[in-house]
Amino acid sequence: MKTYKIALLPGDGIGRDVTEAAWTVLEKTAGSSGLSLEATRLPWSCDYYLENGSMMPADGIETLRSFDAILLGAVGWPRKVPDSVSLHGLLLPIRKAFVQYANIRPHRLLPGVQGPLRSDGFDILCIRENTEGEYSGAGGRVHQGTDNEVAVETAIFTRTGVERILRFGFEQARRRRGKLASVTKSNAQKHSMVFWDEITHGLAAEYPDVEVTSYHIDAMAARMVMAPESLDVVVASNLFGDILTDLGAAIQGGLGFAASANINPDRSAPSMFEPVHGSAPDIAHLGIANPIAAIWSGAMMLEHLGETAAAEKVMAAIEATTVRGIGAIPGKDKTDAITASVLSELG
Amino acid sequence: MKTYKIALLPGDGIGRDVTEAAWTVLEKTAGSSGLSLEATRLPWSCDYYLENGSMMPADGIETLRSFDAILLGAVGWPRKVPDSVSLHGLLLPIRKAFVQYANIRPHRLLPGVQGPLRSDGFDILCIRENTEGEYSGAGGRVHQGTDNEVAVETAIFTRTGVERILRFGFEQARRRRGKLASVTKSNAQKHSMVFWDEITHGLAAEYPDVEVTSYHIDAMAARMVMAPESLDVVVASNLFGDILTDLGAAIQGGLGFAASANINPDRSAPSMFEPVHGSAPDIAHLGIANPIAAIWSGAMMLEHLGETAAAEKVMAAIEATTVRGIGAIPGKDKTDAITASVLSELG
Ligand SMILES: CC(C)[C@H](C(=O)O)[C@@H](O)C(=O)O
Ligand SMILES: CC(C)[C@H](C(=O)O)[C@@H](O)C(=O)O
Repeated sequence: MKTYKIALLPGDGIGRDVTEAAWTVLEKTAGSSGLSLEATRLPWSCDYYLENGSMMPADGIETLRSFDAILLGAVGWPRKVPDSVSLHGLLLPIRKAFVQYANIRPHRLLPGVQGPLRSDGFDILCIRENTEGEYSGAGGRVHQGTDNEVAVETAIFTRTGVERILRFGFEQARRRRGKLASVTKSNAQKHSMVFWDEITHGLAAEYPDVEVTSYHIDAMAARMVMAPESLDVVVASNLFGDILTDLGAAIQGGLGFAASANINPDRSAPSMFEPVHGSAPDIAHLGIANPIAAIWSGAMMLEHLGETAAAEKVMAAIEATTVRGIGAIPGKDKTDAITASVLSELG
Repeated sequence: MKTYKIALLPGDGIGRDVTEAAWTVLEKTAGSSGLSLEATRLPWSCDYYLENGSMMPADGIETLRSFDAILLGAVGWPRKVPDSVSLHGLLLPIRKAFVQYANIRPHRLLPGVQGPLRSDGFDILCIRENTEGEYSGAGGRVHQGTDNEVAVETAIFTRTGVERILRFGFEQARRRRGKLASVTKSNAQKHSMVFWDEITHGLAAEYPDVEVTSYHIDAMAARMVMAPESLDVVVASNLFGDILTDLGAAIQGGLGFAASANINPDRSAPSMFEPVHGSAPDIAHLGIANPIAAIWSGAMMLEHLGETAAAEKVMAAIEATTVRGIGAIPGKDKTDAITASVLSELG
């Protein structure tokens, strides 16, 4: 029997609620699929920080490295610990240390879910660069506190970083409907984004079967709302991908439905799976968070581990749940009720 | 009789079509409002560049300085001149030279227009910083063409620049429904965006009557689609405002309806009024561009000149047109037919 060692990082707030829900679904799926999932729960979080002075132990990254995959809930509780500490102490270092350079987020309407758009026939795969660019952290401030103060924030793009995420995008487009949208803002950011466009055009020659189009980020944001059905794979920088995937979550009915995978495509380190939503401290532990995004992220984990049949079982159970209206309307059903329905649909 | 000297900069593509349409409406309005508008047409554009080697004459900025306002169509025709040349040679230098630091864009549905959202009860005023930030142009590339290449793009924020746009936002909120949303990404961009947040919080004390909330750009993009009716005034950096206002255009039914003003609030130089849409070379001079965004921008110009009654006449004529379905459906009516209807509604 194949055994996978999974690090469970519930994190903060509703991260804990939805990770437990997802785990029960994954365990049951494993049982009926002839595989074994072994969880190790790691309590790293803002509470952990308040007790220990850091978001994870000094050897946290080394500990995580031995797992086959990481299932994360959500990180952050601003009233306890500033986001600049919590996110830079746990979520972001994992993405970078494990070179999880491809953040993949699927955007489509689950059956039974009504989104905010009149249009409902879209199926978009957003691929976000996850390790560099606008979130490099480089910058600083001078003349602090004076009228003369200046703050700079430097986006850093490497050829290696841009080429690998674009290549990943071309490969995904090839496996889907053959269309790749590359998102930049080269008319206003003439160093980084012109660089990105050049690399896109260079790679296009290697993928003659993929139809690639460049869009400016502003036009793409409008397109996701006006004509989402025209899009297949969308590849974007760290910041642009961040924005577009929240927009993608919105058009698919809300953050309760948006799943994501932080992938290390070379498999030189574990990949991490997490719902797009945050920790939502205001509704933490009330039992009302929608676990569907976390369960879907779990299905993406099974897929990444090569357990495609098991992943499909989970997706089918999610869809059989929402099509009956359960978990389909934000705020209506309790976490437990939605989870119970997915479990029973698993058969 | 009050006389205003207006520089007409039709620019490229449909910029020419819609600027002429807007001008006929403005002239007729002036006639019935006891004021006089004098147009000076300036042919600066990509065609001008191909003939003269620059987008405008060397003394272009000085020429424009003597006008009371500038009405611009659109700039850019990528197949003739790269955007990095045309935009940096005409549109962007005007915004910067005349310290038009407040780019104002109203987002609401005109009567008779069906947007892409199920929701229709929103009325948002986006205020975009227009002179610095992520579009400063600072940056460069090393090891060009090698595997080792790195491109950097530096966003530069000054206290003066951030404070004045936020103050402008607070003032606008005070005149509207008293709610200000300030948009950053301080959990991932810890220099520039934390700076912006600090200044926001500092100013909040001076405006106790304004309810100010900070949002991350990703959450704001989602909110504009999920709950646009919860927003009043939204203030954002150059890049974030650029993205949000295209999204705003999308939810109001498309770029054909999105007007904008590049305002110099100190009135030390002329302000500039332009539709949010670009030059759309593919439909240039076919007579099918929607002139409503340009006409609405003209109304914003009248308002800025202090001619509130005339501005209201134009808006009433636009609304009387769209409510009858004319110009309300993208691509349906011709430029001339829409303009004729607005003119006849002016009475
Ligand atoms: C919490 C934040 C740093 C994070 C990001 O921007 O990467 C989140 O918004 C996301 O999309 O995963
Ligand atoms: C054309 C481009 C440089 C411009 C901008 O980003 O400022 C446009 O998108 C706008 O929104 O006015």
